[in-house]
Amino acid sequence: MTATGRLYGVGLGPGDPELLTLKAARIIRDTPVIAFFAKRGRRGHARTIVDCFLTPEHYLLAMYYPVTTEVHFEDAEYVTQLSQFYSDQAALIAVQLEAGRDVAILSEGDPLFYGSFMHLYERLRGRFEVTVVPGVTGMAGCWSAAGLSMTWGDDILSVVPGTLGAAALVQKLRASDAAVIMKLGKNFAKVRQAIIEAGLLERAVYVERGAMPGEHVVRLQDKHDDVAPYFSMILIPGQGRRP
Amino acid sequence: MTATGRLYGVGLGPGDPELLTLKAARIIRDTPVIAFFAKRGRRGHARTIVDCFLTPEHYLLAMYYPVTTEVHFEDAEYVTQLSQFYSDQAALIAVQLEAGRDVAILSEGDPLFYGSFMHLYERLRGRFEVTVVPGVTGMAGCWSAAGLSMTWGDDILSVVPGTLGAAALVQKLRASDAAVIMKLGKNFAKVRQAIIEAGLLERAVYVERGAMPGEHVVRLQDKHDDVAPYFSMILIPGQGRRP
Repeated sequence: MTATGRLYGVGLGPGDPELLTLKAARIIRDTPVIAFFAKRGRRGHARTIVDCFLTPEHYLLAMYYPVTTEVHFEDAEYVTQLSQFYSDQAALIAVQLEAGRDVAILSEGDPLFYGSFMHLYERLRGRFEVTVVPGVTGMAGCWSAAGLSMTWGDDILSVVPGTLGAAALVQKLRASDAAVIMKLGKNFAKVRQAIIEAGLLERAVYVERGAMPGEHVVRLQDKHDDVAPYFSMILIPGQGRRP
Repeated sequence: MTATGRLYGVGLGPGDPELLTLKAARIIRDTPVIAFFAKRGRRGHARTIVDCFLTPEHYLLAMYYPVTTEVHFEDAEYVTQLSQFYSDQAALIAVQLEAGRDVAILSEGDPLFYGSFMHLYERLRGRFEVTVVPGVTGMAGCWSAAGLSMTWGDDILSVVPGTLGAAALVQKLRASDAAVIMKLGKNFAKVRQAIIEAGLLERAVYVERGAMPGEHVVRLQDKHDDVAPYFSMILIPGQGRRP
């Protein structure tokens, strides 16, 4: 009887391969099966980050999303398709683990912070041993790139999706000392307006591809279009106690 | 004429030396002057984390806090003493940089997320080149240790200090999907009561020394005392969209 393999959820950090932790790099080098998510027909951003750690001995298990933006996420069809997708991928990973092979699931940023890894984790954690390796979050990559001292003393930080309604956004921003607004994309104009209404325009900074090639940092008041790709966020640093 | 040195703010992650990033480890190894904060009379937690990366060639610049808990932080005396302390340390670091030596300031967790590094950064950034190396936050170390899938889909995360008033805590917790409550210590009983009032006791998890030796994870409802040391926090995971 073979012992089952161990599952690793490995945080890759914001994009620069040098921002992997020593532990993440070691586990990726030593784990025979490397699983990663990617858009259909793409190489996969997570895989690209770890290119320099992979060898021909690694078995790569690519997990291609069945849908990304073609179907809206509140659509029942989207939920059904994704749910089936995660269950299928969990089953494929379970086959490897049952055969006694360790599997590392790559996760951009931190695995348990808005990570797709969690969908597999919740399906597999009862049956297999799991080690989660935390990573530098994308937002930390962005505030470092921007040189923003984000939170001081007793500041409250809110991490808010740009998908929130305009009124809720304004209220949330007013109730926080520091804020990170993610998922901009089509929500950008609405988010900018909410920041203006909350009186925070002067403190807001827009960061695109923080800690990745093509990094771009600009004060929100100096950004003159509403174009914001997926890897972008707006940061509002706190102003708490600073002796 | 000597070129001035470069200042590094280096995130060390939550405590396990293997959770340094590759970049942090490289910079610490290659930088001649290593500066770190410590309580007077102590070795310093940050220094202990990086022990395995230090050599006899490193010049260690220990920065001992003049006060920690003897004086309350809202006391004018505290502000004056700490302000003077940070200015003095910034001046000592500036001497090294002016002499052409690079200096790395160690920062537990991430340097720009509640880090003492920021007090030196704001005093030195205009005069010297600075590189900030983001790190894994203490809270990510804690939720990985606890195996908690923290934020899903469009969840709002709030990071809240336990120093907040009871009513404000309840309101903040009710307005968030996921929460991290830090700075427990003497605030622990108040924080627990606020979590109960917000109806979140069942989801709350207490983590002590996440990703450090002596790590301890327990559901809040199973914790029967009010003792919570500095390196502890309470985590309330979100329950957002999960196909």
